[in-house]
Amino acid sequence: MSAIRHALNTKREDDFAAWYQEVISAADMAEESGVRGCMVIKPWGYGIWERIQRLMDDRIKAAGVQNCYFPIFIPLANFEREAEHVEGFAKEMAVVTHHRLIADGKGGLIPDPEAKLEEPLVVRPTSETIIGDAMARWIQSWRDLPLLTNQWANVVRWEMRTRMFLRTSEFLWQEGHTAHATREDALEETHRALEMYRACAEDDLAMPVIAGEKPENERFPGADETWSIEAMMQDGKALQAGTSHYLGTNFAHAAGIKYQDKEGGEQFCHTTSWGVSTRLVGGIIMTHGDDDGLRVPPKIAPHQIVILPMLRDKPEDGAVLAYCEEVRAALADQSALGEPMRVLLDKTPGKAAGKRWDWVRKGAPIIVEVGPRDMENGKLAVLRRDRLWNPDNGKPNFDFADRDAFIGGAADMLGEIQQALFAEARERRDANITRGVTSMDEVAAHFAEDKRYPGWVEVEWSKPSGETLDKVVEQLKALKLTLRNVPRGGEAASGTCIFTGEPAVERVLVARAY
Amino acid sequence: MSAIRHALNTKREDDFAAWYQEVISAADMAEESGVRGCMVIKPWGYGIWERIQRLMDDRIKAAGVQNCYFPIFIPLANFEREAEHVEGFAKEMAVVTHHRLIADGKGGLIPDPEAKLEEPLVVRPTSETIIGDAMARWIQSWRDLPLLTNQWANVVRWEMRTRMFLRTSEFLWQEGHTAHATREDALEETHRALEMYRACAEDDLAMPVIAGEKPENERFPGADETWSIEAMMQDGKALQAGTSHYLGTNFAHAAGIKYQDKEGGEQFCHTTSWGVSTRLVGGIIMTHGDDDGLRVPPKIAPHQIVILPMLRDKPEDGAVLAYCEEVRAALADQSALGEPMRVLLDKTPGKAAGKRWDWVRKGAPIIVEVGPRDMENGKLAVLRRDRLWNPDNGKPNFDFADRDAFIGGAADMLGEIQQALFAEARERRDANITRGVTSMDEVAAHFAEDKRYPGWVEVEWSKPSGETLDKVVEQLKALKLTLRNVPRGGEAASGTCIFTGEPAVERVLVARAY
Ligand SMILES: [Zn+2]
Ligand SMILES: [Zn+2]
Repeated sequence: MSAIRHALNTKREDDFAAWYQEVISAADMAEESGVRGCMVIKPWGYGIWERIQRLMDDRIKAAGVQNCYFPIFIPLANFEREAEHVEGFAKEMAVVTHHRLIADGKGGLIPDPEAKLEEPLVVRPTSETIIGDAMARWIQSWRDLPLLTNQWANVVRWEMRTRMFLRTSEFLWQEGHTAHATREDALEETHRALEMYRACAEDDLAMPVIAGEKPENERFPGADETWSIEAMMQDGKALQAGTSHYLGTNFAHAAGIKYQDKEGGEQFCHTTSWGVSTRLVGGIIMTHGDDDGLRVPPKIAPHQIVILPMLRDKPEDGAVLAYCEEVRAALADQSALGEPMRVLLDKTPGKAAGKRWDWVRKGAPIIVEVGPRDMENGKLAVLRRDRLWNPDNGKPNFDFADRDAFIGGAADMLGEIQQALFAEARERRDANITRGVTSMDEVAAHFAEDKRYPGWVEVEWSKPSGETLDKVVEQLKALKLTLRNVPRGGEAASGTCIFTGEPAVERVLVARAY
Repeated sequence: MSAIRHALNTKREDDFAAWYQEVISAADMAEESGVRGCMVIKPWGYGIWERIQRLMDDRIKAAGVQNCYFPIFIPLANFEREAEHVEGFAKEMAVVTHHRLIADGKGGLIPDPEAKLEEPLVVRPTSETIIGDAMARWIQSWRDLPLLTNQWANVVRWEMRTRMFLRTSEFLWQEGHTAHATREDALEETHRALEMYRACAEDDLAMPVIAGEKPENERFPGADETWSIEAMMQDGKALQAGTSHYLGTNFAHAAGIKYQDKEGGEQFCHTTSWGVSTRLVGGIIMTHGDDDGLRVPPKIAPHQIVILPMLRDKPEDGAVLAYCEEVRAALADQSALGEPMRVLLDKTPGKAAGKRWDWVRKGAPIIVEVGPRDMENGKLAVLRRDRLWNPDNGKPNFDFADRDAFIGGAADMLGEIQQALFAEARERRDANITRGVTSMDEVAAHFAEDKRYPGWVEVEWSKPSGETLDKVVEQLKALKLTLRNVPRGGEAASGTCIFTGEPAVERVLVARAY
């Protein structure tokens, strides 16, 4: 294996953080914009996000949730009335104070003092409070419930330390917001959204996740319950990849979301909210990327198959291109993984070998190369991104396939790649969750500096709250650890809480995290 | 006809502006948000926008343009360096000056004085300057050209007088931005986008438009040429429904967008930008709406066919629902207008008659009602929204159709409705463009107060510029008129400019406008 010359300069095991940045740049997914904390999402990165959006939106619509659009600006008053919520967000919001610029007389521009807003506006960090206002207008009676809304939008949370896709001041997301007559209905919706996220993460993104409830200290500001899906990255850290909140009647009280029940009585609604963001793209990189770049699961690959004609500025180029175009059309005519196959014939200038490595770094699931001899023999050279290297000789693992056989089997091959990426990630994840850890000392030892891939540990605890929980969180923080979630449907606890020494009531995951 | 009891309170001919607001509210498309100048787009309005997005995005992708995402915040410096551009926009932008809120000690919140930004950020009113920065990074050589990008985004232009969909401080749009090696290539792209907009407006939105070049005074700030599609609303006013700009090398100079040509010389790129927005939804309302509400062209209707079961809380309800579900499934299995048919079985509580009028006001193209007797006879009651009233008796124009015949003909019927709406709008538009007007007095007489539907006039002019043009614009402004565009491929001029008395060189459209 030592002969392999990988397509990236940085290996995951050498410097995972640098590797992450190199993948983003080598796969041409995004870049720093020059605007503090904001990134530019480039076509390949945005194309992956568009695929996630499409598949998630189908799931959202299938659940009867309707898309809307709410204002980007939120008046201060909305934050003032929900004390707990604002405490969670007030520290990092972009505030609009003026609505005009004027010349400063020195060749520059300044906010026009005459155009100062009477009440500053906040660029939405999330939309519970403004959507709560709308719900209060829209809901009168039990007949209006449940009210199921979602929006795809940009949000801004001022971040001091940013990292592309994982933590940026502006990011893209969907936020579902629903209102229900009862606690039971709202909890059911909270769990429906959580399960939708699990299914999308695992079935579409091939990213195994553990769905569970966040401990009290990790709850969304103003929520009664926060649930999450947690994915394990290849450095063993956890990534919170989606959250679903049961908000109780807290936001309903603050915004006046009330309904008349069947008996004519006035009741507060129970609300939920749930979201996933462009952070998922970061999760895909750290789940599926390797030392040659990104590997995109076929379901979310903007191009599933990329065909590279080997052109030599010779007369036969035209015939090679025509042969490639026939292959492209025959593939694009088929379905794979339930949708029309997405096939690109890459005719951009440049040598096929150079372009091959570009597409390897971008992680196109299947790369097909066609030269004049292949054409004559009715063949193709097929490279599966999930089996890039031939272990025997350390060279790219080309399969010289019969053209028609490849076309006939391409849909199955894409399905196999989707499964293979998921299986690989799940095996690694499962192999790196340590159970049966019964003391904080053991936890500390497990995460000691020299352990390269500590993964997660599952421990039993007494589910402390308030100040007791604060102490647990501080203890863990000293080890750079966090509480992730209590897996849904997890095994019951039978022992002693490793933090409090009290009888344990459930199991919680502990990990380093993004 | 006097017997007809229309579904809206306001008729178009009585108060067009009030009628417009009533349609938006009666069709449940949008509402004021309480945030200055921002609206909430509700599911039916947003669903129409999603359809427009989908069809436009397909056209954009088919042209080889790639979607990206650029930051919402633009540094002041970007505006400072493009003098002409900032002059056009500086007057109405949202300015972010702080990144944190703190308690004011009186129960309220204020921008934290300690968190004042060193350089204020502007919420993008359009993205030429920030995308220009990216282009300058991305383009090195002629091989990188053309660079074809687009983004779907929200933008903010502070507006003092707002009107839902037509003029709001925040709106949704797409903005295409491209860079080219030569003027010719950039002009070709400018025209490709213009033609794409024309095709989408006419073929998808069934909204006839005239594509042409805007006069100098109506150019986008910093553009060398601005082209538009102009649609005629039912009050005779013009709506600029999309624009495509050739920006010359102006933005390339400001942002340093340069490339090395084949001879190794350094050249500035020629750039374009082009956009359509949620304003199109306003155009659809004012093109297709009638005194019963909205009429949505089938291609952009979120639901093309709505099935209403007539339920009576009786045992046979189950059988009626099952019959409706069979019809729904048989329809949804088919294609119409090139896509899977979008069919809704509306099971929400409420009487079928009340729900019928809700869907009439929303403008679903076909409404189908099914009662127990229809079911027994294998029939359906079909109401085409474009032929709502029976002219003989002033009652809803139900066709009691055979179930299978309706299912078999539904796709054709949707195609017919699409065509009928377009033909109706085009006939009205064509009947209301007046040609052969040869003096300003005639123009004034044409638009005199008592004329209810003056439409547009086409006049010959000498294409004045600078101060001469300014005077023309003022003259027209006194009559509340504006120059719309010089129709692409329009007839040549042969007479005298009605404004300057000089020989005319082309024909320009004059109209009141939104
Ligand atoms: Zn409360
Ligand atoms: Zn210049």
